[in-house]
Amino acid sequence: MADDLIARIRLIRSPSIGPVTYRQLIARFGSAQSALDAIPDLARRGGGKPPRLFTSNEAEREAARVEKLGARFLTLGQGLYPSLLAELDDAPPLLIAKGDLRLLDRPSVAMVGARNASAAACRFARTLAHNLGKEGLVVASGLARGVDSAAHDGALESGTIGVIAGGIDVFYPPENEARQKAMFERGLVLAEMPPGTEPRARHFPYRNRIIAGLTLGTIVVEAAPRSGSLITARLAGEAGREVMAVPGSPLDPRAQGCNQLIRDGATLVQNAADVVEAVQPSRTRVASPRFDYEPPAEQFDGEAVVTVESLLGASPVPVDEIIRLSGAASGAVQMALLELDLAGRIDRHAGNKVSLRPS
Amino acid sequence: MADDLIARIRLIRSPSIGPVTYRQLIARFGSAQSALDAIPDLARRGGGKPPRLFTSNEAEREAARVEKLGARFLTLGQGLYPSLLAELDDAPPLLIAKGDLRLLDRPSVAMVGARNASAAACRFARTLAHNLGKEGLVVASGLARGVDSAAHDGALESGTIGVIAGGIDVFYPPENEARQKAMFERGLVLAEMPPGTEPRARHFPYRNRIIAGLTLGTIVVEAAPRSGSLITARLAGEAGREVMAVPGSPLDPRAQGCNQLIRDGATLVQNAADVVEAVQPSRTRVASPRFDYEPPAEQFDGEAVVTVESLLGASPVPVDEIIRLSGAASGAVQMALLELDLAGRIDRHAGNKVSLRPS
Repeated sequence: MADDLIARIRLIRSPSIGPVTYRQLIARFGSAQSALDAIPDLARRGGGKPPRLFTSNEAEREAARVEKLGARFLTLGQGLYPSLLAELDDAPPLLIAKGDLRLLDRPSVAMVGARNASAAACRFARTLAHNLGKEGLVVASGLARGVDSAAHDGALESGTIGVIAGGIDVFYPPENEARQKAMFERGLVLAEMPPGTEPRARHFPYRNRIIAGLTLGTIVVEAAPRSGSLITARLAGEAGREVMAVPGSPLDPRAQGCNQLIRDGATLVQNAADVVEAVQPSRTRVASPRFDYEPPAEQFDGEAVVTVESLLGASPVPVDEIIRLSGAASGAVQMALLELDLAGRIDRHAGNKVSLRPS
Repeated sequence: MADDLIARIRLIRSPSIGPVTYRQLIARFGSAQSALDAIPDLARRGGGKPPRLFTSNEAEREAARVEKLGARFLTLGQGLYPSLLAELDDAPPLLIAKGDLRLLDRPSVAMVGARNASAAACRFARTLAHNLGKEGLVVASGLARGVDSAAHDGALESGTIGVIAGGIDVFYPPENEARQKAMFERGLVLAEMPPGTEPRARHFPYRNRIIAGLTLGTIVVEAAPRSGSLITARLAGEAGREVMAVPGSPLDPRAQGCNQLIRDGATLVQNAADVVEAVQPSRTRVASPRFDYEPPAEQFDGEAVVTVESLLGASPVPVDEIIRLSGAASGAVQMALLELDLAGRIDRHAGNKVSLRPS
């Protein structure tokens, strides 16, 4: 079991392996170790050289550091890993968790919004989070300034989960150190990146998908057009979760993002009762993590890599379309894509799309 | 033609005859005069005594007064009468109009809201009305305080219609006298009640149905729960028109009505472009006033009155249900209801329902 964890850490921390590839490798080879063993051959068949793999020593060091921090790993498809989150195609293979893991067993909603939200919006978010707690809902957010912090504060007594973009031991923004530490004690903090990781701009959308995927629905409180909160809302919608928004006057520029969300179909919410009503239908849903081991049914098709590569270009195309155009079996195409991926010759994109990597 | 107008005035001003009965009488008898001639017999067959009818002299006096006021009549199903309004089951049979009648030929939207609206909401309403004018839309409202007045002011240059609950020569609220007079000159004012009528509480819902029925859609700017503006919005929805609402913060009590409307399916609008987008599909609709003379096809059924009356009670029931339960022909049931109505033995309700009048 410890060996399996080390193998899983090695697999996901290897530079060329993202969550989608990880999931496909486990599905194809049954275990992280078998996948690691197979990777050099796969990459060669994909026309590249074997990628550098995260070493056992490096993985052991990360595991020891997590333990020393009083945190623990949650691994996709196993044990305490949140079942709703496991539904995402790009669910994080590993999460590092510190705090009260029982919060993962309770129904939750996300609340996100502007970092520079108005005082009124922050007060509203705090009260709403408090009232959602009284309704038995855990409130998840991103431990950012503004609305996120207010949401955590309001739900600290009843149950709150913070998902951070950096490592579990990194406090960002710095003024949230006390808040994050309070949540280690009385809430729960989740991180996808290894300890010590300073959050960078590209990490925030990854963090947002976890907030959206973990919860029954996402509430946006105040959001500028084209803000990260709207990305979280979009990801929630794409994952089939409720998208909720708190409206505001058209005279208030900070209300424009939420008002537009409502125009686009989000549920207008004004209070906890509205949120409860919106998420009620899915509150008892049984999550169905699609994470079973699929023993390879077809023989590997040596031609498939060539065929698939010829169908790819610089613009991302859906994998389903590649399968249809190739005329090959789905499993063979997926395998070819895996090989090309490990050979560093394709890029994966949101919505299960792939493109040829510029050489 | 003048005789026909006098007969129409007599018919609708007769105390026992409302818009629905008026419409059915004209449909059944082809003209107001034929209806007037038939009423005594109908009432007797309905088991009552002939109702008092407005006299020719009274009607002549009203017509003379309207002319002297520089106003004119619009009669349902004829000439300049607004075609969208004619679609209502309870369209006003007569309107008294003063101002620029060409405004009736242009697409219009209604804007309504709180009389005690915030200064910000009034400014917003004025700007929105102004911008709707630039988009070629006439703005209709109710010449009340607050949002209504702001909407008229914003659209005075481009085209605005005020629908008032009292007589065309009555200024209510008094401080709107100058505004109403300006609209006689540069806009249009419509009244359903005869000149000299002081508006009473029961007149306002009638006025609201005209605002909703006249226009392609109704925009609610600020509205308390259970306010007249929400009634107008509901009537617009029932008439198949667009219902639009301007959102606000849940912290602002005056936004609750609009936010609830949006939750119930109204289109959230923030600016003139949103309104134009919402009403665009119906902008070119061809109104179909259902106001044709239907010569009586069936023999009058002497039993029908007894049957229909036995099916009625103190609770309003839909006319369609009466027809179904009676087993009689639709025309015979309608005729029986008309007779009972003129005999003062039933009450008509919204949604084409009827009940027995308590004796």
